[in-house]
Order: sequence, then C-alpha cells, then structure tokens
Amino acid sequence: MKQPLAGIYTPNITPVDQQGRVDEDKLCAYVDWLIERGVHGLYPNGSTGEFTRFTAQERRRIVEVLCQHVGNRVPILAGAAEANVRETIDACETYGGMGVRAVAIVAPYYYKLSPEAIYQYFKEIADHVSVDVTLYNIPLFASPIDVPTVRRLALDCPRIVGIKDSSGDIPQMMRMIAAVRPHRPAFSFLTGWDAALAPSLLIGCNGGTNATSGVVPELTRALYDAAQAGQWDRAVQLQYRLLPLFDAMISQPEFPEGFRRGALARGWDLGRSRQPLAPEQIEAAQRTQERLMQMLSELSQWMPEISPARTTPGQKNDDAFIERIVREVIAQLQQ
Amino acid sequence: MKQPLAGIYTPNITPVDQQGRVDEDKLCAYVDWLIERGVHGLYPNGSTGEFTRFTAQERRRIVEVLCQHVGNRVPILAGAAEANVRETIDACETYGGMGVRAVAIVAPYYYKLSPEAIYQYFKEIADHVSVDVTLYNIPLFASPIDVPTVRRLALDCPRIVGIKDSSGDIPQMMRMIAAVRPHRPAFSFLTGWDAALAPSLLIGCNGGTNATSGVVPELTRALYDAAQAGQWDRAVQLQYRLLPLFDAMISQPEFPEGFRRGALARGWDLGRSRQPLAPEQIEAAQRTQERLMQMLSELSQWMPEISPARTTPGQKNDDAFIERIVREVIAQLQQ
Amino acid sequence: MKQPLAGIYTPNITPVDQQGRVDEDKLCAYVDWLIERGVHGLYPNGSTGEFTRFTAQERRRIVEVLCQHVGNRVPILAGAAEANVRETIDACETYGGMGVRAVAIVAPYYYKLSPEAIYQYFKEIADHVSVDVTLYNIPLFASPIDVPTVRRLALDCPRIVGIKDSSGDIPQMMRMIAAVRPHRPAFSFLTGWDAALAPSLLIGCNGGTNATSGVVPELTRALYDAAQAGQWDRAVQLQYRLLPLFDAMISQPEFPEGFRRGALARGWDLGRSRQPLAPEQIEAAQRTQERLMQMLSELSQWMPEISPARTTPGQKNDDAFIERIVREVIAQLQQ
Amino acid sequence: MKQPLAGIYTPNITPVDQQGRVDEDKLCAYVDWLIERGVHGLYPNGSTGEFTRFTAQERRRIVEVLCQHVGNRVPILAGAAEANVRETIDACETYGGMGVRAVAIVAPYYYKLSPEAIYQYFKEIADHVSVDVTLYNIPLFASPIDVPTVRRLALDCPRIVGIKDSSGDIPQMMRMIAAVRPHRPAFSFLTGWDAALAPSLLIGCNGGTNATSGVVPELTRALYDAAQAGQWDRAVQLQYRLLPLFDAMISQPEFPEGFRRGALARGWDLGRSRQPLAPEQIEAAQRTQERLMQMLSELSQWMPEISPARTTPGQKNDDAFIERIVREVIAQLQQ
Repeated sequence: MKQPLAGIYTPNITPVDQQGRVDEDKLCAYVDWLIERGVHGLYPNGSTGEFTRFTAQERRRIVEVLCQHVGNRVPILAGAAEANVRETIDACETYGGMGVRAVAIVAPYYYKLSPEAIYQYFKEIADHVSVDVTLYNIPLFASPIDVPTVRRLALDCPRIVGIKDSSGDIPQMMRMIAAVRPHRPAFSFLTGWDAALAPSLLIGCNGGTNATSGVVPELTRALYDAAQAGQWDRAVQLQYRLLPLFDAMISQPEFPEGFRRGALARGWDLGRSRQPLAPEQIEAAQRTQERLMQMLSELSQWMPEISPARTTPGQKNDDAFIERIVREVIAQLQQ
Repeated sequence: MKQPLAGIYTPNITPVDQQGRVDEDKLCAYVDWLIERGVHGLYPNGSTGEFTRFTAQERRRIVEVLCQHVGNRVPILAGAAEANVRETIDACETYGGMGVRAVAIVAPYYYKLSPEAIYQYFKEIADHVSVDVTLYNIPLFASPIDVPTVRRLALDCPRIVGIKDSSGDIPQMMRMIAAVRPHRPAFSFLTGWDAALAPSLLIGCNGGTNATSGVVPELTRALYDAAQAGQWDRAVQLQYRLLPLFDAMISQPEFPEGFRRGALARGWDLGRSRQPLAPEQIEAAQRTQERLMQMLSELSQWMPEISPARTTPGQKNDDAFIERIVREVIAQLQQ
Repeated sequence: MKQPLAGIYTPNITPVDQQGRVDEDKLCAYVDWLIERGVHGLYPNGSTGEFTRFTAQERRRIVEVLCQHVGNRVPILAGAAEANVRETIDACETYGGMGVRAVAIVAPYYYKLSPEAIYQYFKEIADHVSVDVTLYNIPLFASPIDVPTVRRLALDCPRIVGIKDSSGDIPQMMRMIAAVRPHRPAFSFLTGWDAALAPSLLIGCNGGTNATSGVVPELTRALYDAAQAGQWDRAVQLQYRLLPLFDAMISQPEFPEGFRRGALARGWDLGRSRQPLAPEQIEAAQRTQERLMQMLSELSQWMPEISPARTTPGQKNDDAFIERIVREVIAQLQQ
Repeated sequence: MKQPLAGIYTPNITPVDQQGRVDEDKLCAYVDWLIERGVHGLYPNGSTGEFTRFTAQERRRIVEVLCQHVGNRVPILAGAAEANVRETIDACETYGGMGVRAVAIVAPYYYKLSPEAIYQYFKEIADHVSVDVTLYNIPLFASPIDVPTVRRLALDCPRIVGIKDSSGDIPQMMRMIAAVRPHRPAFSFLTGWDAALAPSLLIGCNGGTNATSGVVPELTRALYDAAQAGQWDRAVQLQYRLLPLFDAMISQPEFPEGFRRGALARGWDLGRSRQPLAPEQIEAAQRTQERLMQMLSELSQWMPEISPARTTPGQKNDDAFIERIVREVIAQLQQ
C-alpha cells in the first residue's frame, strides 16, 4: 500500500509571461526553489493556481510540464476538476499517466449541490479512474462536503485516499478524522487553511496544502518538523510568525494577488493574474508587498534562511520591482 | 439605436440525448414550441442551460445551432462567460458573428471578487467586443454586482446595454433603475427571479429571463402582457399562479432538475442533467414532476392553453414517463 | 368582528430628555404631529422605539402615556415582548386593559429558535391573552418565522390577527398571503420594509408599520392612498421618492439613529439614543441629517406639505440644530 | 495585581422548579457538585444560564444566592448585561458588592452594532464600574467584537481584564492574543467553544467557560490539567472524547435544552427551560438524553470518575427519568 499523503504541499501559483501565457521556464525554476527549500509536494491547478482562469488545454500542459521537470523529487497532487464528470475522469486518467501521485478534485461550484449530489459526483469519478483521488473541500468557494459525505466516500471508494479541507474549522476536522480514521487509517487529512496549521497537526492532520508555503517554504517546513517532533511550543511559536504573513496575503483583495505579491517579495516575479486590476488595486497590492517585505525582513533576523528579495542572490532588487509597478500603473492610466 | 431588450426571454434547458451529448434536434423542436407559445427571446448557456457543465466547444455549438434554426423569429441572448477575459471576448465576437442580439456575461464566480475587480472585468470585455453585452447578476452563485458598479459600467461602457438580475430583491432593482435610467434610458433591466416578475415589472423592469417560461411560456407571456396593459390586478393574479410552480421547481434539489421535470410535465423529455443523481434523488424528482402535473392540470382549467403532458398531442403520456423513470432507477440500482 | 389592521402604522421613536429619561411631553406632541399628518396608527415599543433599551417598567409607562393621550383618534399596536412567556402574557393583558387595538410580539431573539419552538412560544401566549396579537417577523434581528409556522398559528390561534414582516422579501410575503388568506380573510399582512411598500401593497398587503412614516408621514400616506385607489403609477412614483430617504436613514450605523436624524430634519428633537456614540459617529449622523434636509427640501418642491425643519413653524431652525451638535461633540471630546 | 482569570468556569444552567421559579436549593446543591468535581469557577447568567429569560430581579437574586453559598471556594464571574448602559453599570456595581471576581458583559444583541458603537458601549461601562469586567464575544447570538476593538478596549480600559470568545475560531483567537498580550500580559483569554478547548489552550488561552463542564466537569478538568502539564497527546485524546458529547448537546434544538438533558444524564434534574416545547421536541430531547447516557457509560469505563446517572449515589435512576418524561409528554398531549 502506498504511504498516506503527508507533509506540506505547495498549491503553486501559475507563472504567466508578459503576454499572459503560462511561463513554463519560470514555473520550473520556481518549483525548483520550492523543493530546495523543503516543500514535500506540489499542487498545481489549485485555487492558488487559478485553475478556473486557464483553459482545459492549459491546465493539462501545466501538469505535463511539472511532471516532466520534477520527476521523482517530490510527489505531485494535480487539481483535476473539469466541466463535468466525463471531462474530469479524462483529466484524471491523463494526469495519472503523466505520473502524478494523486489528483485533487474540488466539490462542484457555481451551483450549490446537496450532500447526496456531492456524493454521487465523487463516487462516479472515483469508480472510473485508476489514479488516487483526494477530495477538496473549500466552502468559501464551492459546495461544502459535509462529514457524513466524507465518511461515505471514504468507506465506499478505495480510490479516494484523502481530503484537503480549507475551512479552517478545527472541530470540523476532528469530526472528519473521528468519522474516517478508525476505518481507513491511511486516509489523509490535509488542511488548506494556513492560519490553523499547527492546531490542525495537533489534532491529527497529516499535513497541509498551504499557499504560504509558496512564499515562506522554510517556515511552513519548520512548523511541520516541529509538530512531527512533538515540539508543540515551537510549532505554536512558528504559527504565530506565520499568521500575520498569511493574513496580509489572504486579506489582499482579488485572491491570489496577495500570494503573487508574497512571491515577489521573495524575489519571484511570477507575472500578473489574468483577472484585470485597476490602478488603485495595483497600488494597494504594492503596499501589501512592501508590508510583506518588512515582515520578511523582521522574520529573517530570527530565521536567517528566510530573506526578503533584496538580499536573494540572482533576484531583482526592490527598486526594480517598484519601477516595474510604477510602469504598470502609468501604462494603465494612459490607456 | 437598437430597441432596449424587453419581454420574456427563456433561459432554455440544454437537451441531451441518452449518451449525454447535446441533442440538437430536440433543442430546435423545443425552442420552436417556446416561440410558438409566445416567448420574446431565447437565452442559451444561462444557469438553467447548465453552461458550466458543457465544454467551451459545446457552448459554441449550442449558440450556432440556435442562431441558424431560429433566424429572425426571436432575438437570442447568448451566455458568453468563459475561463478568462480573453476567452470571453473571443466567445462574444464569435456569437456576434453568428447573429445574436446580445451576449450575457455572468459576474466572475468561484473566487469572490471586489466591486472594483468586477468593474475591471466587465470594462475590459466591453471595451474589446463589437456585440451588445448584458451583465448577469446572480448573487446566489457568483460575485454580486452592486449598484454603484452597475452605474459605473452603464455610464462608461456604451456596449453594455442591460442587466439581468436574479436576486429577486425589488428595492435593489429600484436602486439600479434609479441610478442608471436617467442617464441611459434604453438600458434594459430584466429580472431573473420569476417569483417577483409582476412586482419587478411594476417598478419599471423591461422584462425577465425566467426559467419558468421554459415550462409555462403561456403564463409568463400573459403576465407580461397584463403588466404592459396596466392591468395590475390581473398581473398579480397571474403571479400568484406562477409562484407555486416556480417554488416547486426551484426548491427541487440539484437545480435545474426541477425545471427539467417541469418541461417533462409539459411533454418535453429533454434528457438527464450531467450531474449524476442517486436513485432516491430521481424518485424525489419524480414526485415533484407528479405534483407539477397536478398543478398544471388545475391551471389548465383556468387557462386552457396550458396543459400537462397527458393531453399534449404528439407527446408521451404519463405511463411512458413513469416507465422510463422506473427503468432508470432500476438501472442505477443494478450498477 | 373587528376590522383587520390596515393602513400605515408608525413604529415611533421614543423621545428621551437630556437626562436620558423618557420624555413624555415630547412623545405626546410628536404623536399629535404624526396623527395630524395622516398616519393610521401608532406602534410604540417596536424596533424603532428601541424597546430592548428600556426597562420593563418604562415600556409599560410608554404605552400607558400613549393610550391616555391618543384616546380614540388612532389605534395603538403595542410591542409587548418581555423576557419570557409569563412576563409577555402579563404585558399583553396590561396593554389590553389600557385600550390598545392589539399587541405586537417579536419572535424570540438572542437564541435562535426552531420553527417548532417559535410556534410553541406564540401558541402559549395566544392561548392565554384576551387582546389581539400580531406576529412580528424581523429576520435581521430575531429568529425568523417561516411560512408554515405563520400558517399554523393563523389556523390554530384566533387571537392572532396579523403579521408584521420586515424581511422585505416580496415573494415570501406572497407565500404567506397565499397560505393564510383563504382560511382567515381578515388576517392582516403589514410590511415593515419601507423600501418595498408599494410592491407589498400591490400583492395584497393591508398596510405597513414603517419607520419612515415617523419622518415623512405625508409621503407614506400618499403612497398608501394611491395604492388604495389603484393608482399604481403614482404609488410607484412615490415609492421612488421614498426609497432614497429610507436608504439614507436605514444605512446610518446604529439603527435607529438615522431615523432620529430624520425626525430632527423635520424639526423634532427627540433626544439621543441610549446607545453611546463616538464623536465621529455623531458627526457622521450629522452629515446624514444634512443630506436628509437637502432631500426633504427637494421633495417639498414636489410635495409642498412636506418641509424640512427650517420652514416648519414653531420648530428650531438649522442653526440651532447644528449648534447643539457642535456642543455635543465638544462635550464628548472634553470628557 | 490580581491573577488573570484562568481555568474552566462553568456557565451554569439555572435550575427551575415545577412552578417555573428559580430553584435556589437545587442551584446550591448543583454548584457544590461542580466544585467538588473540579471546576475552577462559576459563571451564572451566561447564555447557558438563559439570562435573557429571567427578569432583572431574578438575575440579581441568582448571583446573590451563589455568592453567599459559594463563599471563597471558587471565583464567580457574573453575567451582568442589562437593557442599557446605565442598568448594566448598576448591575455591575451590585455584583461587585456581592463579591464576584468579575462580571461578564455580552456585546449588545438584537440590534447589530458597528465596531465603534461596541467600543463606546464597553468603554462607557468600564469607565463607571469598580469591578473587573470581561468581554463576552458570541457572534452566533450577539454583535461580534472584532480584534481591533478588543485591542482598543484592552489598551484603554484597565477595568477590562479579559475576553470570553465563543466563536471557536482558533486563528481569530490567535489574532486577539497577538494584538493584546504584549501590552496586557495579565489579560485573560477564555474560550467558550468546548469543541476547540485543547487547541485553544495550545495557542495560549488561559482557560474556558464551557457548558460541557456543567455535565462532565471531570473531563474538562482533566483536559485542562493535561494542557497545563504540556501533555498535548493526552489533551487531544480528551478533546476527542469531549467532542461527541458537546456535539450531541449543542446540536439539540432549543439551546440549552441539550445541556439540561446532559445534566439529567448525570443525575441532575434542573427542571424545564422557560421556552415552551412541543411534545415532539420533548421526545427528541429524551432521545438525546438516552444517547448521552450511553456515551457517558462508555466514557466511564475509561474514566471511572465519570458515571451516568444510574450509578450516581443519591440520584434518581433511569426509570424515574423516563417515567417523568412520559408523564410530561402525556400531560402536554392532554392539554
């Protein structure tokens, strides 16, 4: 039997170039940096990867590029939700063939589905694929997957091997674990709510898929390692360090713009989201970025392996960032 | 200048065949029936048309088939939202070339966008298309479009010619009208909440895009005509007739299953939604259908042009429906 | 049988003096003004009257004063909700003895009750009182009363003679009317959401309990009279006049501060709410008041019987108002 | 300086007799049992104590009785919210004179207040009392107190010494602690959401005010002691034991009926809530009670000091409970 999914997976941002195309070279370089700094896995085509803003063809290419580039270094969990069950099954099989460790499938969104319909949706997919499947519960954006439905799916579908839960509701996660683990000990519980990572690990989660790990992989790794070692005081201390970074990025309007700015603060210019922004929004994002750089600078005094962009060898310095943003703002204003 | 969009548009269900493919022949026959019974326009690829469950290619084909088949009989308002701004602009231009009267673009969904981002999204689309655009506000499923944003878009974008609002919030509709109409008298306000059609027309809406018009086109037409004639007592009386039908269909879980059953109750077997259903769900939907047939039967005594399926010439009778459902349930149980 | 409750009832603000006590003289003078200007009834101890911020003893005294002063001029609907069923029954009987037309009882608040518990609550009260009772549904503040519960209560409790609904949800009001009126034709439906008054009357409501009638009683009366006469165009036109006034007052933070400012704009200084406000909040309320005076001034050109405070004989002029506010702000800053 | 509030406080149920009056003898006996079994403090007139369903006079008597009876055995935190600021200040001073350790004041409810108004409300109270005050944040029932407001109040008001938060939102609690503790190290953070007790203690809370401690005081005490000793594995294990008990009691409709039934399952017949219930509701509550007895029975095999009612010396046995319930149901049916 395969090991349960565990550790910190990065739901990686999708780098785009000046023309708005997926920047495959940047993607490869960025994930190399993540892997070097300790993330346990990658999670392309997640919410942070803006899967809904790319075409079906682009989504497949992103997974293909990552599988070829990453090889066996870390496992890949590929977001595989498509327009309907049939298309989703096709994507799952394709990704399985490319070598992903598992696929992640978000609950249906736009329409609000009943628990029974959510069960049927995942059941039909799980019955027709030959790759491991993880459920993805993100009640903020999609139909919620409730505890009895998680339990039914875990008991009925051997292909379903875990759940990523982004609700941040610790008691709810405990209810899921209590309902499933006695029957499926290897079923994996991953939290997607970075603000609750340490408490989630305390109550038994196997890890997380955390957008902040795309910005401070050293910090999320250190937190995970502390938890694994039972050093709960240290894990909590790290959680208190992680929280304001997460809050600054998640509270930036137009998710995942805050995380793009976080990556930029670490020296990674991953391009602009496909969601158009107003000049005022770009300025607000820039202020967030400056705040993030300040926070990272303070953090680096305490955890030297983390450093804001200025001192990262081979990366652009602050002036270049600011210059680029000024150019963008002016360009938009001139339109 | 073109006339403002007005009257009752049917957000038509997408017929599918036994293999789950779009049933083009059934689509043409069904819209013929709708047009004969008085709908003022068609609205393919709306929420009722389950646009998110079809591929980009299928969505284009649906509009193409309708444009060719309908010709100049009634105008077509085509749902054109795609994965991102660029893809959406492409779809708009394609549909414009096919001859649609306008496109309808739902506010971005999945991610919750700020009013400013929603403005930028629609602005960028409207600036790059040569077809008329209507906004589609459906807060239940997508990021809400607030009144100041509607106003800004109406003032800044001549290509935007109207809004479909499915909130059912009458005072909010009044606020929109008060904010826009003095500046853009031909800007069109359409309600998508059938339960509030008469009051919406009273306070100045130009019409509606109403899923019930795909089931009882005679009733929505009569209501609209009464309102046009200032016969408000009659319009309200018709609204009280429409309400329980709408409630029965909208409260059926797994929208738009209730409306598929409504169509079936009128004799139109438009196939199964692509969202898989459990046997218990199919049985519940069947009970809804039986209730709808009873309601239609009572309605037909008062409005003879409406009749449930049994007496519609050339349509299947009840027994055939029930038999088909029994077959489906048994087939599912045997899986 | 008594006539059903009908017309526009004013949920009147409770005037307080400089020491924070109920100002009984002001209360009498204010309701005289309301009655002269056409309100059909009064509704003390409602949400606008801040019933929760007065003691049980004060609430009784308010009703007593009003009953004695108003006599038979207009009916009084007295808010009678107390801490529990027994206390509420006591208050009902006391108010009945004072001569109120009926009492209004809000659904239990703080705790969220199930529909069954709401039924039991009202049933137990209705079974033990000798005064007519109206239900008060205000989902924004208290446990919602759903349609089946309204129906059960209407069928089971002859003492319950109507419902005030402040949801503003027109289809929901239609559902209530459809569920109850065939069985209890004299059961009264009153809307408490002023923004939807004309559409509510269109679909069959008997009237409203509208806070704006405490500020522009002439306007709400004119709207009601137009609706009674079947002059729907005029009713809608008046609704479009009423809407921005209502919006300005309801959107002012710390309800019912906006309505206190509205009364002040008409010349009625009813004192300060018992909820303490910051200097910034007082300034914001003053700006609302200035905007209301501007709106009233415009309205008065079209409807001369309405006039802002400046020109109301015997009332303070603007300068006095502003001076008073400046004094208050300075006093607070000096604390 | 006084020690910060810490440990597990029981928001105790208010016992009532057959006539619906506060049962003072039962109250004293019940809190003796709680104290013997390890609760660190008592919290009368909280949500579990149904403070809104008693009169101002009854609330005072409850605190008086408890203060006299408990003496110095454990500290008392008395719920002191009244109709308005003045009445609340009066209650605070009265309770201070009776010897309570502190008062707890819930954020204003019914009306939804802005953060600024909430600040003003608590500030005005804190400035005028001579007893320690704790804030009580329960967003489910009352206006939420946000993090900046907690911070402002902690910095501006030395009389405010802590907050009880019943949101169960761990990251939010971390934000409060991060915002306040550096400036007010002795400010106390207590969780009111029993389902998150262990994680709350992990991230630095001083204790909790937990309704389950009124039913299984041994279990909440053991959990707290484990956390204090840094035995996090044991604390989590105990949390997994506590969770289903809490869920069973909190999910019982008509809070705090589930907790009354929990107490009954331990042998404490604390009487009926003042909220009337239907026979079906009483039967449902009885089923909950039976489930609780089963859960307690299982728990007692693992933690012998906990025992369901049957084996508690001096308490009624199951048959008597069931008989009593049957009598009640029949009595109601006969009405």
